[in-house]
Formats: sequence, C-alpha cells, structure tokens
Amino acid sequence: MSENLDKLLEKLKPLLGDRLSVAQAVRQHHGEEMTHYDVCLPDAVAFPESTEEVSQIVTLCHAHDIPVIPYGAGTALEGHFLAVQGGITLDFSRMNRIIDIKPQDMDCTVEAGVTRMQLNQEIRHTGLFFPIDPGANATLGGMTSTRASGTNAVRYGTMRENVISLKAVMADGTIITTGSRAKKSAAGYDLTRLLVGSEGTLAIITEITVRLYGMPEAMSAAVCPFNSLEGTVDTVVDVIQMGIPIARIELIDDFLVDLINRFSGLDYPVEPTLFMEFHGSENAVQEQAEVVEEIAISHGGHGFKWATQPEDRTRLWQARHDGFLSVRAAFPGKDFWVTDVCVPISRLAECISETREDIKDADIIAPLVGHVGDGNFHLTIPYNKNDPQDVEMIEQINARLVERAIRMDGTSTGEHGIGIGKKKYMALEHGPALDFMKFIKKSLDPKNILNPGKIFDL
Amino acid sequence: MSENLDKLLEKLKPLLGDRLSVAQAVRQHHGEEMTHYDVCLPDAVAFPESTEEVSQIVTLCHAHDIPVIPYGAGTALEGHFLAVQGGITLDFSRMNRIIDIKPQDMDCTVEAGVTRMQLNQEIRHTGLFFPIDPGANATLGGMTSTRASGTNAVRYGTMRENVISLKAVMADGTIITTGSRAKKSAAGYDLTRLLVGSEGTLAIITEITVRLYGMPEAMSAAVCPFNSLEGTVDTVVDVIQMGIPIARIELIDDFLVDLINRFSGLDYPVEPTLFMEFHGSENAVQEQAEVVEEIAISHGGHGFKWATQPEDRTRLWQARHDGFLSVRAAFPGKDFWVTDVCVPISRLAECISETREDIKDADIIAPLVGHVGDGNFHLTIPYNKNDPQDVEMIEQINARLVERAIRMDGTSTGEHGIGIGKKKYMALEHGPALDFMKFIKKSLDPKNILNPGKIFDL
Repeated sequence: MSENLDKLLEKLKPLLGDRLSVAQAVRQHHGEEMTHYDVCLPDAVAFPESTEEVSQIVTLCHAHDIPVIPYGAGTALEGHFLAVQGGITLDFSRMNRIIDIKPQDMDCTVEAGVTRMQLNQEIRHTGLFFPIDPGANATLGGMTSTRASGTNAVRYGTMRENVISLKAVMADGTIITTGSRAKKSAAGYDLTRLLVGSEGTLAIITEITVRLYGMPEAMSAAVCPFNSLEGTVDTVVDVIQMGIPIARIELIDDFLVDLINRFSGLDYPVEPTLFMEFHGSENAVQEQAEVVEEIAISHGGHGFKWATQPEDRTRLWQARHDGFLSVRAAFPGKDFWVTDVCVPISRLAECISETREDIKDADIIAPLVGHVGDGNFHLTIPYNKNDPQDVEMIEQINARLVERAIRMDGTSTGEHGIGIGKKKYMALEHGPALDFMKFIKKSLDPKNILNPGKIFDL
Repeated sequence: MSENLDKLLEKLKPLLGDRLSVAQAVRQHHGEEMTHYDVCLPDAVAFPESTEEVSQIVTLCHAHDIPVIPYGAGTALEGHFLAVQGGITLDFSRMNRIIDIKPQDMDCTVEAGVTRMQLNQEIRHTGLFFPIDPGANATLGGMTSTRASGTNAVRYGTMRENVISLKAVMADGTIITTGSRAKKSAAGYDLTRLLVGSEGTLAIITEITVRLYGMPEAMSAAVCPFNSLEGTVDTVVDVIQMGIPIARIELIDDFLVDLINRFSGLDYPVEPTLFMEFHGSENAVQEQAEVVEEIAISHGGHGFKWATQPEDRTRLWQARHDGFLSVRAAFPGKDFWVTDVCVPISRLAECISETREDIKDADIIAPLVGHVGDGNFHLTIPYNKNDPQDVEMIEQINARLVERAIRMDGTSTGEHGIGIGKKKYMALEHGPALDFMKFIKKSLDPKNILNPGKIFDL
C-alpha cells in the first residue's frame, strides 16, 4: 500500500494544501476513541470544505485503493472511525454550514460536520428544534451514519425516522442525492434509509436534510426514585403501553445515581430512578404527568421531584448525560467498556434482571442506564484492559448480554452501532440476511475502500 | 423460455398440486389491473401456503430463469403485478394467517396475504389497531412492497415507519429475516427499509411485523367546504405547521364532491372540501378540532359538519374512499388514468394551482383528491385509451405533473409506486442515484427473475 499511498498523497497535496496533514499529533487525535479500543492511526487526515472536494478525494483514494474513513466529532463508542486498515481520514469539521432552513416544511439541510447543539443554536429563531440527542455533541453526519437516537427517541424516533434525504459521495467519487424533500415517496429503493446506519461503509455522507419539530408550548421534567429496579421497568412498560407520548423516560440504577450525585454535586436519593420529560400544550403536559406519576407510585415510586424551569431541566439532563463522565471520575486509572442492547419492551424487565444477576455473579461493578422507553439500555464497566483475565471476563459478560438480547427478539446494539466491537455478533443476529448485506456492500464499494473492516469483514 | 417453463411447471406440479393453475381465467384474473394498463398474463399462477413453499418455488424459478411476480389483492395502480416478461405469479391469498399478536409490544406478525381490514378485524379485541389505510383493502404484503400510505399517514406515517421486520425469500430461494422486534437498532444495514417499497424486485416478502397503536379514546371526523381551493390548501399548511396531530386531512375538489354526492347519495356542498379526522383523548380531540376550525374559517371555510358517531364516520370515509368508483360510475365506457405526486407542503398550493391551470388549458376533466397533509395528491382522468390523441395528451399532462413535482423538490409518486408506469421518470427524479439502485438490484437478483421490468429496466 505504501507506494500507492505516497502517490495518493502527492495528488492530494495540491488539492488540499495545509488541509491535508500527516502530523503525528493530528493522526493521533483521529485514531483514538474515548472507550477501550486501541489507538489506530490513519495515514493522513484531510479537512474537506465541500461535497465536491470530498468527491475529488474519494475519486483519488478509489484510484489508488486507499481506505477513506469519515470522522465527525469523534464521539463513537465501538471503534467506528479507527483506521484499522490505514488510509485517509476525512475530518468534517470544516463542513459545518447550515445550508438551508425551511421553517414552512419543518426541515433543514446541513453539512455533515454540523453538530446537534450548533444546529439547535442556529435554528432557535425559527421556533423549531431538532430533537435527537445521543448525549454527546455529535455531528449530524456521525449521527446519521450510526443511526443515532438517545433520550428523546421514545417520542421523536431515531435518525432513521428523522433523516429526509442525503447527499453522499459513493466509492467511485460519484455524488448522489437520495430521496427528495417530499414527506413521503414510493419512487424506488429507499437509499436514504440504506445509508442511515451504514457507518460510512457504503458512501460518505456530506449533507443531511432532517426533520424539525415545533418547540413544545410546555416542557416539564421530573425525577422519581423507586423502591426497586423492577418498579422502574414496570412503570416504563405501563407508560408505553398506554400510549402516553412521553418525550423522555430514562432509567438510572442506584449505583449510577450515587456516582452522578458525587460528580455533579447533587443529592438524588440513591435508588433506581426514572428521569422523565413531558412535551406538549400546558394541558397535555399536566395530563400526561399526572397519569405517569400515578403509574409510578403504583409501582413503588416515591413521587415526582419537578424541574419546570429551563435551567432546572438543563441541570437535570446534564446530570443524566454526565453518566459516563461520572463513572470515569469515580474510577481513575481504569479503562471503560461501554455497551448497549435493545429488546422489545415486553422483555425489558426480564433482560435487565438477568443482566443484573450476571453482573452480580461476576462480582463486578457495571452501572446501568437506559433509554428504557425504547427497550434500550447501556452498561459502563470499569476494568483494566491490560489484565487479560479482566478483559476475558468483560468480553464474556458482553457476549452473554448480546446473546440474551438477541434471544429475546432484540438487537446487539440499540444505538451505538457495530463498528469493530460487535462484528462478531452480526451472524447470530442476522443469520442468512448478513450475506445479503455483504452483497450490497460489494456492489456499492467493490474495492472495499469505504471505512473497511467495520460492521462485518468481507 | 418456453422449454424452461415446461420443465419448471413439471417440477412445480408435484409440489403444489391444484394450487398451480395455468387456466386462462385464473391467469386473466392475475394479469389485469383496474387502471389503464393493458392485460398482461403470467404463464401460471401458484398459491403457496408457507414461506418454505415460496422458497421452494423461487428456488425452482431461479434454476430455470423464470420470472416470479408476487400478487396480493390486485389493487395496484401502476402495473406492479403485470407479468411483462411472463413467469409465475405467486398469489398470497392462502397465506393469510395472523401469526402472532404482541399487545404488550404493540406489534403483530402476519403473513403477506393478510388484508388490512382482516388485520383490524382480528386484532379488535386487543384495543389496538393498524392505521395505514390506502383506501383499497390491500394485503399487507402489497402495502409493504409499494410503501403504501393513505389517509392516516399524516399522523401515523407510511409503511416505511410502521414495518418493524420482515421475512422474505431472496432470488436464490434463501429465506431471511430482516431486523428484530426491538423498537430500534444500530446493527448493520436497514434491509427492512430497503425491501419496503421495492415492489417485489429485491425479494418476495412472506411475513411482515407491523406496529400497532392503541385505539384512541376519542375519534371525531368533520367535513368543511371552502370558497376556494386555495383556502383548503392554506388551511392544511397552517395545520401542519402548527404541529397539530391531525389524524386525517383530505382534500376533495369541487368536481369530485359532485361525483361523490351522486355516487353515494350524499348532499355535500359542491365546493372544494376538506375531510378531517381527529384522534386522542376527549379533551385533545376537542382542542385540536377547535383550533383547526378557526384556521379553516379564516381561509374561507364555512364551518365544520361533524361526524362523531362511528357509523357517520364510516359513511364519511367510505364516501371519500369511493372517490375512484364515483369517477368511474360517472364516465361509463371510459378508461381511467390514475396518477399521484407528492411535494413539500410549502410548494403544495403552487403545485396544485399550476396543475389545475394545466388541466384547464388541456380542456379535460381531472378530479383532484389529496392526502394533502403530506403534500400528496392524485388525479383520476377519464379518457379513451384507444384514441392515440387522447393517450398522448394524458401522457403529456402526467409528464408535466411529475416534472412539476420533481422541480418543486418532490417525488414522481407519493404512494402508488413506480411499477411500469413511472419508470421513465426515475432518472429525472434520482439522477446518478438510480445507477446505485440498479447495482443493488443486480447484486441481490443477478438473474433478474424477481418481478422484472418494474421500477427500472436493466
């Protein structure tokens, strides 16, 4: 590859000037995840400024058989942007323009490097907002590529439901637009949904048109501690089954509540707790909240602690989002294994309960947090990645977790994606369908240059 | 092909017995659409009873290079099931079992031959319902294959949003399952969404798991006539932009109101009219309806005529759904050209207005009806398909309609699909993305046996 790489870099230099870097520090920054994966550097990092430039770069990479890896905000959790076969990382930080806001159609087109917080800041004046919130301030490109979701998905859906159309560069450099701005279409294959969640392996997404929503008239958040973890899950199941359009309903186990209290200087009761949010008209919010509080109390909830002021709500959700940081702060010097699964809501109680048993049997610490309205939950496990015994045990816990979720008609990952970490479970989850995913990959990227080594091996 | 076909039929006979027919009447029934397309017969019709049987049939067709065409209720509008290259039609009428209802997860798995009315009948006891309603009593398999939507889509989405997972038979006979029953997943390519809307060209769908919804506490329908067509569209745009979760909002132009009155013995004022429905709690329905009525009156609406009793609502929507039949009844001996497009809501008024101008200039009759909350509208044009001048004029009207919609960032079809009728617009709509659809088709069906000649030509 080295000779090809040299030739490629020679051609990229005049195109990009100092927006192409082979500096160790830059490569390091783009080759290191915040979780347990080993550092894995690209050969160079390019900072394109337009779709046309991405197309030129990909065309050259294609001609020279060099991998291309898209890079957003670097918040991936399963090794998505690690350059496992070397190649050129495309850093989208210079493609961060809001291209078009259409308040009348409640949609917006952005470049792939726009982050979700930037988007919400820049559309604030329209009275609209973009609800998908995976916690981290990820880019829209990254969120699209991993089919991200997060706390609001229970009401607003995931990136699958909220991406309207895409501009993307295919493996040979061709620029395509998928879908249209119509709200629905029956015109051919749904390339938009095929690219959403494809983790940069089928195309490099450069522009995204997303749905926006009217800022609700009223928003209200509440925290409710429970006697037992079972009570929280039973509450969630009832709320969902009653069709209450709750905007957020998040489970945090007692262990994590304790860590969050310490990290954020808060004093929530150290019990399994639901963090919730209600959106709607004043009436609707009150109506929903009353019903949910009643359900919660019937399952051992101690009643709601309200946060109706914007600053209180922000503090509450910041605390929730700092879950990972609070675990990290509590275990200095440790490495962290982060994982998520998702099951049908009817199996959630059983899945969480078996998982907690497994954690208990293994005698490890594994704070549990979940977007439980979707049947999705996470573990963050402190461990020592240089201790082979530790690694083996965590890998087995993770394997059992994934197998349990799949056995319960669920999935190996609700929102983190496959990356390199969960490739080994793809066959178990998808069976013969996996072959057809590979056929599609081969047909769209015959040279396997687009983020190779992710989702599955060929 | 004939020799291959004979060999194939010899092998299918012992498998299917009298569930394989080459009778002229049976072939005729499966080769004739209700719209303007010419009759086009399959060589034989098979009536499989299980996914395994479909797999056996497809395996044999694959071995003998014979096309396979899936057939649901025969309600397609763009030639989807016409055997343009001959072959074996798979009639799903014997695969009409409800396989599994999971009220807790609010989903349901059915065989592809289950119709939407049958489904709603059989799940009635659960208090849940399946909202997608394209008018015709289509099968879930057909609705999935054409990405159907209809009157309720403005609130509940289309088949794209409501199919959770699929069982399907691939071109070589392999049976796959796409997705899981988890509400969300980030595990690999979204094969479910790729098959939804693929019109039988990528796989034969045999089982579908769909989302269900709690029957709303209250439902209320209203009819509102307007001074002008512009007033109806402006009302729709305001309602959508205010984020009112209206369940149905349908436009019927004055001409069609007249025909519906005559066909159904009703006496609606002969003016452009909105048919609406509201779902929710008693309070929510009232709140929504009050706001919408106020908006309507501000745009020249004459006030709501209510239908709150189930039988009144049924009558109202039956009248709406009989739109096509009422046109047919008014023009005995005529042929009918049915078409639909969809545009962003901000362009709807302009698109409808230009279309009406075009119709006026051509001096033809073309009743207009629309799922206008989604920016989707239909024309049903009586004409004489044996008159070349008539045909040419209608084809030009249709072409201008489609080009207009695409120019306005919309799509050549909101819900009818491409079939054979709109293939010619695929390049205009999708540009270079069309090539990648073809790559996918070739990778999944290299022999082009799955409903060949639909969506695009290879």
